[in-house]
Amino acid sequence: MTIRFGLIGTGRIGQVHAANIARSDDATLSWIADPFVDGARRVSERFGGAVTSDPGELLASGEVDAVLVASPTPTHIDLIARSIERGLPVLCEKPIDLDIARVDALRETVRSAGVPVALGFNRRFDPAFASVRARVTAGEIGSLEQLTIVSRDPAPPPAAYIAESGGIFRDMTIHDFDMVRFFLPEIVEVSAAGSALFDEGAREHGDFDSAVVTLRDRSGAIATIINSRHSAVGYDQRLEAFGPTGSLSVANAATSLVSLSTAQTVEAKPPYQDFFLERYAQAYIDELHEFVRLVRGEESTSPTFEDGRAALVLADAAQRSATEHRVVSIDPAE
Amino acid sequence: MTIRFGLIGTGRIGQVHAANIARSDDATLSWIADPFVDGARRVSERFGGAVTSDPGELLASGEVDAVLVASPTPTHIDLIARSIERGLPVLCEKPIDLDIARVDALRETVRSAGVPVALGFNRRFDPAFASVRARVTAGEIGSLEQLTIVSRDPAPPPAAYIAESGGIFRDMTIHDFDMVRFFLPEIVEVSAAGSALFDEGAREHGDFDSAVVTLRDRSGAIATIINSRHSAVGYDQRLEAFGPTGSLSVANAATSLVSLSTAQTVEAKPPYQDFFLERYAQAYIDELHEFVRLVRGEESTSPTFEDGRAALVLADAAQRSATEHRVVSIDPAE
Amino acid sequence: MTIRFGLIGTGRIGQVHAANIARSDDATLSWIADPFVDGARRVSERFGGAVTSDPGELLASGEVDAVLVASPTPTHIDLIARSIERGLPVLCEKPIDLDIARVDALRETVRSAGVPVALGFNRRFDPAFASVRARVTAGEIGSLEQLTIVSRDPAPPPAAYIAESGGIFRDMTIHDFDMVRFFLPEIVEVSAAGSALFDEGAREHGDFDSAVVTLRDRSGAIATIINSRHSAVGYDQRLEAFGPTGSLSVANAATSLVSLSTAQTVEAKPPYQDFFLERYAQAYIDELHEFVRLVRGEESTSPTFEDGRAALVLADAAQRSATEHRVVSIDPAE
Amino acid sequence: MTIRFGLIGTGRIGQVHAANIARSDDATLSWIADPFVDGARRVSERFGGAVTSDPGELLASGEVDAVLVASPTPTHIDLIARSIERGLPVLCEKPIDLDIARVDALRETVRSAGVPVALGFNRRFDPAFASVRARVTAGEIGSLEQLTIVSRDPAPPPAAYIAESGGIFRDMTIHDFDMVRFFLPEIVEVSAAGSALFDEGAREHGDFDSAVVTLRDRSGAIATIINSRHSAVGYDQRLEAFGPTGSLSVANAATSLVSLSTAQTVEAKPPYQDFFLERYAQAYIDELHEFVRLVRGEESTSPTFEDGRAALVLADAAQRSATEHRVVSIDPAE
Repeated sequence: MTIRFGLIGTGRIGQVHAANIARSDDATLSWIADPFVDGARRVSERFGGAVTSDPGELLASGEVDAVLVASPTPTHIDLIARSIERGLPVLCEKPIDLDIARVDALRETVRSAGVPVALGFNRRFDPAFASVRARVTAGEIGSLEQLTIVSRDPAPPPAAYIAESGGIFRDMTIHDFDMVRFFLPEIVEVSAAGSALFDEGAREHGDFDSAVVTLRDRSGAIATIINSRHSAVGYDQRLEAFGPTGSLSVANAATSLVSLSTAQTVEAKPPYQDFFLERYAQAYIDELHEFVRLVRGEESTSPTFEDGRAALVLADAAQRSATEHRVVSIDPAE
Repeated sequence: MTIRFGLIGTGRIGQVHAANIARSDDATLSWIADPFVDGARRVSERFGGAVTSDPGELLASGEVDAVLVASPTPTHIDLIARSIERGLPVLCEKPIDLDIARVDALRETVRSAGVPVALGFNRRFDPAFASVRARVTAGEIGSLEQLTIVSRDPAPPPAAYIAESGGIFRDMTIHDFDMVRFFLPEIVEVSAAGSALFDEGAREHGDFDSAVVTLRDRSGAIATIINSRHSAVGYDQRLEAFGPTGSLSVANAATSLVSLSTAQTVEAKPPYQDFFLERYAQAYIDELHEFVRLVRGEESTSPTFEDGRAALVLADAAQRSATEHRVVSIDPAE
Repeated sequence: MTIRFGLIGTGRIGQVHAANIARSDDATLSWIADPFVDGARRVSERFGGAVTSDPGELLASGEVDAVLVASPTPTHIDLIARSIERGLPVLCEKPIDLDIARVDALRETVRSAGVPVALGFNRRFDPAFASVRARVTAGEIGSLEQLTIVSRDPAPPPAAYIAESGGIFRDMTIHDFDMVRFFLPEIVEVSAAGSALFDEGAREHGDFDSAVVTLRDRSGAIATIINSRHSAVGYDQRLEAFGPTGSLSVANAATSLVSLSTAQTVEAKPPYQDFFLERYAQAYIDELHEFVRLVRGEESTSPTFEDGRAALVLADAAQRSATEHRVVSIDPAE
Repeated sequence: MTIRFGLIGTGRIGQVHAANIARSDDATLSWIADPFVDGARRVSERFGGAVTSDPGELLASGEVDAVLVASPTPTHIDLIARSIERGLPVLCEKPIDLDIARVDALRETVRSAGVPVALGFNRRFDPAFASVRARVTAGEIGSLEQLTIVSRDPAPPPAAYIAESGGIFRDMTIHDFDMVRFFLPEIVEVSAAGSALFDEGAREHGDFDSAVVTLRDRSGAIATIINSRHSAVGYDQRLEAFGPTGSLSVANAATSLVSLSTAQTVEAKPPYQDFFLERYAQAYIDELHEFVRLVRGEESTSPTFEDGRAALVLADAAQRSATEHRVVSIDPAE
């Protein structure tokens, strides 16, 4: 069964999904909605699909089997609600929302609807991270004791983006919180330190551009996230899983196999990949594939609405910890 | 202008070209010929194009702007000749032929035809090798003094293939000879040593499975090629360009960003890529792109019929050197 | 002027200092004191020097120009006090003491004595860490924004040692606290998370075997320390200094230049160095050299009594943070 | 039994040996001879030993148990002969002599003398090369099929040195020939290519500054040596042993654990070690240790006079091959 997709939102990430849907043997792009209808039209020209400025028309068309929500964050809750109301499975970009109260308000609806709602935590599908997770689960390094994530964006977003972002923890670290939960699902304690060191936008809006978060799992394992909104060397995405019998590490992705050695420096390589579209290209493809399995009722590793909510809970805790200078407890069962 | 391609031959490499033509914005797959017509049909089903068992029908169709020859080596000479007779540009897989006499017989025809004939030396288009070549040309390490190529296949081909291959130098090293000429176009001397160490097929047919070739350029620069028909660690493809102010190296392509450290070994990575289809996937795409430019009369870096012939001259010299245990002189102007 | 050393304590680390003194062109081993007088005798046999079981005899001998205190921690305060009373410069192994009150009681005496008291924070002298510090100071990566230290011992000490150690922060992390202060001298906030995951001794004595500490500098820069009392891959000692224009990293020390590639794993290297005596062999030599300069009244980079006290302040804060689950403020001017 | 050494020659390498003898628990420096007697005196001041300008006095002193010959090459034959005449074991720096006829004239004397004559092929004792040799012998990669040695000096020697050196093969490659024989003792064929690309001294004296040598073992295994008299990146010393089940590689020795990543290049490391005194410091120590074992009649891995001769045979063959442009056969049994 080919899944007919309705895509809502045709920005940078919407375009990635459109291309992956079009290239997939299991999916077609059936409808595209964007209030900025020219964007939708341009995507349709490349990859097919009917075009509308109104997501409602897409949902009501009867021609979509699943919805991919890639619109701005404030629209997510509403679009998820309206999709599941029609019985349509949703793959929604992260975060669900910036406000945990709004997420909680939808929670019961999602639970009882019996319609799959998946969250776009693409990094779970990255072949490297997925492989480390599988090898840890297989016991290759024993019980996980320490998880260290370095995650730095190449350059800060515009101040206007920062203003609406919900802060670094809800906007950027949210991916790392989910990655921590991918390995350590029962976080009981969060401590965060943040600084605004270089970005005027962050400073203006009381946000941080640099942060370190420490998280403790019920098992006692400790995870550390090291974030920065800039990175001269390019998109910096590393992870180390450490256990009693060894460690598994994910290195940065080289952009070239070439290195230069001179009298000044040896084995110097070209900078890393620019940003997430390049670094996680394969992850987006595999994420779609797993969502298709979910829609079909097959076994699937797609992160769920609950995963999206839990990551936001950690983000909120980190925000509170960093601004109030205190350690925050979490009840992972809530 | 979209180039309509006629593809002759739908084996492993023909299928790669078919996919790349289909995905290119500048090309379409118009006709597909293979005496094994089921193979052609299967390619057509995936990527489109009319199907025939007879290359002549393809050439005569009037619906192809360029011919891609991916059929067995013995057919190359004839297909090139018939293509240029009709004024159709050709991209022909390497080698042109195993017999230099047959190549020379076609040489004048190609020269006077005024129709582009490109050779499928795909490695020239590999981003890593191409980058080293560009940086050497830009003077980043000074005048090239030593070029070292390690090129090892994962496993030997079947004995039946060996029997028809023309020997390791004409079949496998031919790529490395072209790579040497990419950097050092005026080779004047060749010395080769070969052994049959592990492959029964090579031993049976008086061929080698292991070889080292040393080549001297008119400039005095010395190139070394180290070949093996097997490699436990996977496809082993490395290069070092060495000059007075430094060196540029191409490392093997990792298949994963993950490494494992234990009490036994640290920083252990997964094996390299299996073989050329994975390792040179991008090179095949770029090769096609440059050929399209050639067909359109734009500036192009496609290697030519003369490059194909020159590589064969070096292969013949290496064969003579290794079997007669002597150093062989070459006149690069011939 | 050759400095005549009095060495107090001939355990593992005392023996290292004895050998380095003996090999130095600037120092001789004049007296050796250890209540376990056989240990002192054995050192004397290899490297010379008069032997006594009583440090008082050493101090009163009139034949020492400087004292090296390598005895158990509880004796440090007293030996420093008695040395400076006699006007003898001291190089004391870390930590000064486990009790900040006792350290503070000595503080004014040290300040007013005008006799150099240096602390054995050997890692400052490690060529790699020293080089990163110098390059950061030279502005090679801009203002330091994030400092990440991974520091893991190969195996936990015996339970009896743990019982007397003052806890992981005062015993092990103390080195890392000093390293943080080497780069970021004005720490204003400390948050620590600790777990007892694998070591029975740690569990018994309410200590941790795994810990992560986050420290914020007055500049806003954030340092992270990741500690474990065990490490299957060997002594794990890494550091990354991250700034706006790049990063400087210290890798683990390989024990061999050899790597193995097979069909299973490629570029696998032998495990790292066992422990600090190997890893910091050169650092101990350079530490001694700088102390000799200090004794001679020359410019010196030796860390001081104040550095020793400041590291203990951070250790105390970390201990409080981890056990009381709160963020602790520090006044770096105190 | 402590071996009393007589050291003849106090140049750069003689001084290394003097220091190692002085530091060894098994050896003392008893006599030092150098016609340039000031050099001998300076060594004696640091490490002890009687001084003479006449090696004869040293040999006749009755106070030496073994002779270390580190004088200029033309004196080696005579000093070996005179040492064994007195029954004194000799460790002689490489090469024995530049003239195979002179070596052969001494050969029978050495054979029948029953006195150990060891050759200073220090690289055999390098921990990395020795480990690869041991692991190959242990079968870790199966039967050796290809051995690749890259060996490049940082900068060419003065023209006056070149004039007396016997040419690059006898002077520099001699070490690599011995390394090849360390792995593949029965070389049957040699082919060499040489060029004078950058060094005026080499050009003047008809010598090469760049060379590649291919050697075939009786087993069919092929070794390749890649030499240059200069290397911008520092002393370049690499080796790869390749077999059916994997490969073992020796990388260059880093001088620091630090790497720099910026927007231009990532993971850039400081240049390699300057030259052989640093790179092979440990090898010289282990070489001495094995020679002491040889002198004591214990099992020893010291290379012998025959090894020195065999390396010179290969050097002569390479010289003939490169100048006469032909492949040269060798009888390893001769």
